[in-house]
Amino acid sequence: MSLDQPGTRPDEALRAELAAEMDAVNAVIRERMASEHAPRIPEVTAHLVEAGGKRLRPLLTLGAARICGYQGRHHVDLAATVEFIHTATLLHDDVVDESARRRGRPTANLLWDNKSSVLVGDYLFARAFQLMVRTGSLRVLGILSDAAARIAEGEVLQLTAARNLATDADTYLKVVRGKTATLFAAACEAGGAIAAAPDEVVEGLRVYGDGLGIAFQMVDDFLDYGGAGDGIGKNIGDDFRERKLTLPVIRAVAAADAEERAFWTRVIEKGDQHDGDLEQAMALMVRHGALEATRADALAWADRARIALRPVPAHPLRDILHDLADYVVARVI
Amino acid sequence: MSLDQPGTRPDEALRAELAAEMDAVNAVIRERMASEHAPRIPEVTAHLVEAGGKRLRPLLTLGAARICGYQGRHHVDLAATVEFIHTATLLHDDVVDESARRRGRPTANLLWDNKSSVLVGDYLFARAFQLMVRTGSLRVLGILSDAAARIAEGEVLQLTAARNLATDADTYLKVVRGKTATLFAAACEAGGAIAAAPDEVVEGLRVYGDGLGIAFQMVDDFLDYGGAGDGIGKNIGDDFRERKLTLPVIRAVAAADAEERAFWTRVIEKGDQHDGDLEQAMALMVRHGALEATRADALAWADRARIALRPVPAHPLRDILHDLADYVVARVI
Repeated sequence: MSLDQPGTRPDEALRAELAAEMDAVNAVIRERMASEHAPRIPEVTAHLVEAGGKRLRPLLTLGAARICGYQGRHHVDLAATVEFIHTATLLHDDVVDESARRRGRPTANLLWDNKSSVLVGDYLFARAFQLMVRTGSLRVLGILSDAAARIAEGEVLQLTAARNLATDADTYLKVVRGKTATLFAAACEAGGAIAAAPDEVVEGLRVYGDGLGIAFQMVDDFLDYGGAGDGIGKNIGDDFRERKLTLPVIRAVAAADAEERAFWTRVIEKGDQHDGDLEQAMALMVRHGALEATRADALAWADRARIALRPVPAHPLRDILHDLADYVVARVI
Repeated sequence: MSLDQPGTRPDEALRAELAAEMDAVNAVIRERMASEHAPRIPEVTAHLVEAGGKRLRPLLTLGAARICGYQGRHHVDLAATVEFIHTATLLHDDVVDESARRRGRPTANLLWDNKSSVLVGDYLFARAFQLMVRTGSLRVLGILSDAAARIAEGEVLQLTAARNLATDADTYLKVVRGKTATLFAAACEAGGAIAAAPDEVVEGLRVYGDGLGIAFQMVDDFLDYGGAGDGIGKNIGDDFRERKLTLPVIRAVAAADAEERAFWTRVIEKGDQHDGDLEQAMALMVRHGALEATRADALAWADRARIALRPVPAHPLRDILHDLADYVVARVI
């Protein structure tokens, strides 16, 4: 596939460019997800592997390493590590959120039980660290263990922020970093670090991943109130029904008068929702410019991602990363 | 406290000898259990720290390092790492077992919720890996990431083995290694490895920890059917009521005739238990020598632990480790 082909989606272009290396990553994932002793583990992990997913995070690691001229083989283990951490997080998230579906399939906690999801998630975390040790790079181990701690911190913060109108934009940003941006940032940073790229390049890759992840999550949160359902994602109002404190709600609450505040307290904090409440919520968001502000924030984070690529060496894959930052916000332009 | 003082318990002697270093370990634990961003984390971890616990695993790490003549400071971080992995495992265990009490206090999953226990456990795992990276030793990182994977594997195996009469002594041993012996072994091995002790010494320490952990767990499982309640541990019959496939049950089932097998199927697999069933179970164990066989196995593993210490350099702390292997089985002699 030519990179110049008009209409090529940048995530697909990235996948096409890195197809051979991603095959190697997928082989490592299959091999290391098995377990000699506990038959439940391959059952659960096979379910996850079959469900697929976009594998965007390992692609970022491979891409960053290639852009920085890496010639070794450790980036394959590293990309698999990143995907393992992501998958372990999803398993635990589904327990925490009591989710029933993920990527269009029943979740592991529904098919087996919460116990299996917790313990198989722990297994994948441990396998991730084993793989990282194989790279022999203490720098990379530092990046990804720091990321794992920040991810867990963000998830815990989300628990206490949930359904709490006192949640502000700062807390929202910390939660979004924890649940999305930190692993995007670490995936990019680790790819540069394994290639021993200069510090400003590694830092540029980190800031790129951070901006990309935040923009991606903000677009998602915007579309839950503002977009047309695209048939593959969630439907309008899912976050509202789950009473999530996403940025559109936070902005509307910040601008609310007493009567509006009573509305938000009822529908979000108390969960007492009736017909017409979603429409009322969206009307309040429009009145206070909350959706427009969320959209503008998403665009600004995508900008920051693109700018961060400046010190990164010229490379066709760098152009794709640049386009990817455009692409994640294209749904709201 | 003199080591020669008659009646000194070896675990207390170990604690007394290593008091200054354990203070440093406890300071690291307190410092690293905090979280800047998520207030729920220090709440949960403070609850765990206050509950105390024997901290035997970090003592083994400190002791092994000292015996091997280690002069650096990384053993303190390493000992804290071992305790973090242990604490994370306990948090997740309590979710999996739906436990209400741990160390005489309500469990975190009861005081907060399962979500907090899962996510704070993840946070502690990540903090453990961060601390390990600080030691700069890839060998130690390998030992403890392998251990973490085996622990999770053992826990998953225990899930599928639970309440299943097909569980045999081999599976039991794998489960016991996963839930207890692997971390004891890794705690000892890592202490030797950080001191760069010769391979046969590091291996001796690993086998010692493995034998100690297995003996400890077998004694526990024996006492659940055979010992007098000691006021601090569990009561006779707890494992029976929870329908656990511990070694005394496995040995009795292996020797059961058709009628006895029907009994075990009813009480363990179906969980249909009545007055007198515990007494009947204990009578069957005595008839088939199941308790005696469990006791003999525990003593053999303690022997193996002591023998494994032979290549380890002479040191007062080595003598304490030797006594500790006697001590864990003293309750069944």
